[in-house]
Amino acid sequence: MFVSDCLQINESGHLTIGGMDTVALAEQFGTPAYIMDENQLRQNCREYLRSIEQFYGGHGLPLYASKACCCTEICRIMAEEGMGLDVCSGGEIFTALRAGFPPERMYFHGNNKTPAEIDYAVRENIGHFVVDNLEELRGLGAVAVAQGRRVRILLRVKPGIDAHTHDFIKTGQIDSKFGFALETGEALLAAEAALQIPHLELCGIHCHIGSQIFDAAPFELAAEVMLGFLAQIKERFGAELGVLNLGGGFGICYDEDDQPLPYAAYIEEVSKVVKATAARLGLAMPYIIVEPGRSIPGSTGVTLYRVGAVKEIPSVRTYVLIDGGMCDNPRYILYGAKYRVLCANKAADPADQMVTVAGRCCESGDLIQEFTRLPAVKPGDVLAVLSTGAYNYAMASHYNRIPNAPVILVRDGIPRVAVRRENYEDLCRNDL
Amino acid sequence: MFVSDCLQINESGHLTIGGMDTVALAEQFGTPAYIMDENQLRQNCREYLRSIEQFYGGHGLPLYASKACCCTEICRIMAEEGMGLDVCSGGEIFTALRAGFPPERMYFHGNNKTPAEIDYAVRENIGHFVVDNLEELRGLGAVAVAQGRRVRILLRVKPGIDAHTHDFIKTGQIDSKFGFALETGEALLAAEAALQIPHLELCGIHCHIGSQIFDAAPFELAAEVMLGFLAQIKERFGAELGVLNLGGGFGICYDEDDQPLPYAAYIEEVSKVVKATAARLGLAMPYIIVEPGRSIPGSTGVTLYRVGAVKEIPSVRTYVLIDGGMCDNPRYILYGAKYRVLCANKAADPADQMVTVAGRCCESGDLIQEFTRLPAVKPGDVLAVLSTGAYNYAMASHYNRIPNAPVILVRDGIPRVAVRRENYEDLCRNDL
Repeated sequence: MFVSDCLQINESGHLTIGGMDTVALAEQFGTPAYIMDENQLRQNCREYLRSIEQFYGGHGLPLYASKACCCTEICRIMAEEGMGLDVCSGGEIFTALRAGFPPERMYFHGNNKTPAEIDYAVRENIGHFVVDNLEELRGLGAVAVAQGRRVRILLRVKPGIDAHTHDFIKTGQIDSKFGFALETGEALLAAEAALQIPHLELCGIHCHIGSQIFDAAPFELAAEVMLGFLAQIKERFGAELGVLNLGGGFGICYDEDDQPLPYAAYIEEVSKVVKATAARLGLAMPYIIVEPGRSIPGSTGVTLYRVGAVKEIPSVRTYVLIDGGMCDNPRYILYGAKYRVLCANKAADPADQMVTVAGRCCESGDLIQEFTRLPAVKPGDVLAVLSTGAYNYAMASHYNRIPNAPVILVRDGIPRVAVRRENYEDLCRNDL
Repeated sequence: MFVSDCLQINESGHLTIGGMDTVALAEQFGTPAYIMDENQLRQNCREYLRSIEQFYGGHGLPLYASKACCCTEICRIMAEEGMGLDVCSGGEIFTALRAGFPPERMYFHGNNKTPAEIDYAVRENIGHFVVDNLEELRGLGAVAVAQGRRVRILLRVKPGIDAHTHDFIKTGQIDSKFGFALETGEALLAAEAALQIPHLELCGIHCHIGSQIFDAAPFELAAEVMLGFLAQIKERFGAELGVLNLGGGFGICYDEDDQPLPYAAYIEEVSKVVKATAARLGLAMPYIIVEPGRSIPGSTGVTLYRVGAVKEIPSVRTYVLIDGGMCDNPRYILYGAKYRVLCANKAADPADQMVTVAGRCCESGDLIQEFTRLPAVKPGDVLAVLSTGAYNYAMASHYNRIPNAPVILVRDGIPRVAVRRENYEDLCRNDL
């Protein structure tokens, strides 16, 4: 019925997540609040791990993308599940280390890692750097020498593939701030340079072709192109690199129109192509890495809000005003992102009213969804916005000096706080 | 030469703000950093205060919009300058009270104040509530009774004026989540209801017709419409309300094409219209309030970044990668906002390269400005993005778990930290 299996309706007509009544959760933890189903989160990880086991002999690793939703407790869960971790800042590394996440399973991404971050990550023995540009390559080489450590790297390559998705989230094409272009020969020069830098061990290559992709074909194409590049490196420099990181971008459901492939189907298709292509090119079967960003946490989360007022403007539209907004979910104002919204305490009622759900920030564009259907709601009702497990908490701001909402994990009928709600003192902690 | 008088170039060819070398500031405080010229900030306040004195006999008050840039030290400065304060959340009220800002000079805005915030603001004797909707009116009335306090209120009115500006920042037209519509009779009904609620004192009305308006005409029109409404209230209910809050929206310079009127010219024009219209309608001259949002801090601030790499993609474009991005300035990705970017250490050099300034967040759309002109830059150079005093620090997020940049005030050759740079521990403070 819903965008995720972890959502149901109980006998009171209330929305449940992981079997827990969201209306009761709103009472207990206040609103707004991010609620995530931990079992679903773990299950999503296991499905990727199992698929790699089944279709690729376990010779690979799925990475959890910290940038989608990072806090200490989620890093702990990822460590327990045996996931790798895609990190893209010192802050993400710090959080993961604090959670006891093994540094060797971290992959450090980013188009502009700062010198301080490079120094920090080398010192902490972060597993691999995904090197974005020559400046980074040189800087990293110098730090590795200075610290006397050997650093394993992948090169971020732009394979020139356009996965037909939103402009903002296309990253594999040549006009991108990320990586080395394949078609201009830049990537090959980077590989040559990397192979010559002492203390750097060039282990493989990485690409990322976009986000919210609903089709295995672009990944298969990327795999072919990237394996061709590995073959070229082998031929030119005699170096057979063992790691092929195919990035992420698997789509998730934001509403019923979205039809993502099951994770296993992606992995199965990609495994086939990688095995066949490697064999054809005379390469050993590479260790494959996938980075299923939003598809792991995205649909495991909902955000709960309370309705403050309903403003009906005759012949225009009806605004439902909630106690959060762009400060906790900026994706509608940023991208016009679609979200399914439910009334949590009237989840079984027919959604026969056309409304606009508006946030509380002092900005007209602070909307969560326009022209969406809800039952008739009134002040005090609880709204649930679905599929907010990724890029909501992670993108939260203090706009209008509104404290960040808490992250609550539910598991087996027990909710627990992963991130406490901020208070006013938190907002002023660094004020002098 | 620049968008603000506080910016100059010194003998080393470096950009200065408030007479201080921005390259030295970047060294001292690190990057990214928000730098604001306190003298210019104070001068902007004084120009508004002086204009109201000169053209309207001092019978009015300019409010500083906290949402543009709020921290304890800026609230202290606003208190010292004798400004009023537009606050729109409990967090902004808390910060202002912490700074010793007098509650009677605060105006509490917002389309969905929470019950907890209403209770808090009444308890703290916040000067005026700008009431947005009937639900708030009733809730506020109940709290005022419960606390046994008299609460002064204004009604937020939609005057139905379209100030021909960006969709996101048009707020005076009828299709808005804010306020009571004038043309449907809703505002009149709200006035009637407000006059009947014990413990609430209806003092006046408020409107806000948009942002980045470069022309006094919409304000004059708004003043006429709003005075007409005051006359209608007087005629119908016998109540002559003394406060007319005309909101904000005065444009500022983001680049040389922007030509805002001097503040004084706005105030002069608006004062004329208010005086003449009030006289014509047989009303006493109202106490006028203006809310010059971004025009007070906006052009007093610059953000300093350091270049990490330059990525030239032949026949496509050149990306200059900086150590901040949408996490400290989301306005380009949100609105395509234009910004003037300079190389702070080459400020006198001809800007003969066409580049795109890209942030460090793992998102292709994380750009600060596309196809803008800079001199040839290299890693280590300092970039200054101008006019970032408003809606930059205020809208900062922890996206990619990047700590927030500090706010540094410079005054008379002395820099001081208003908000410390966050560290990694800050990011995890509420993690369990």
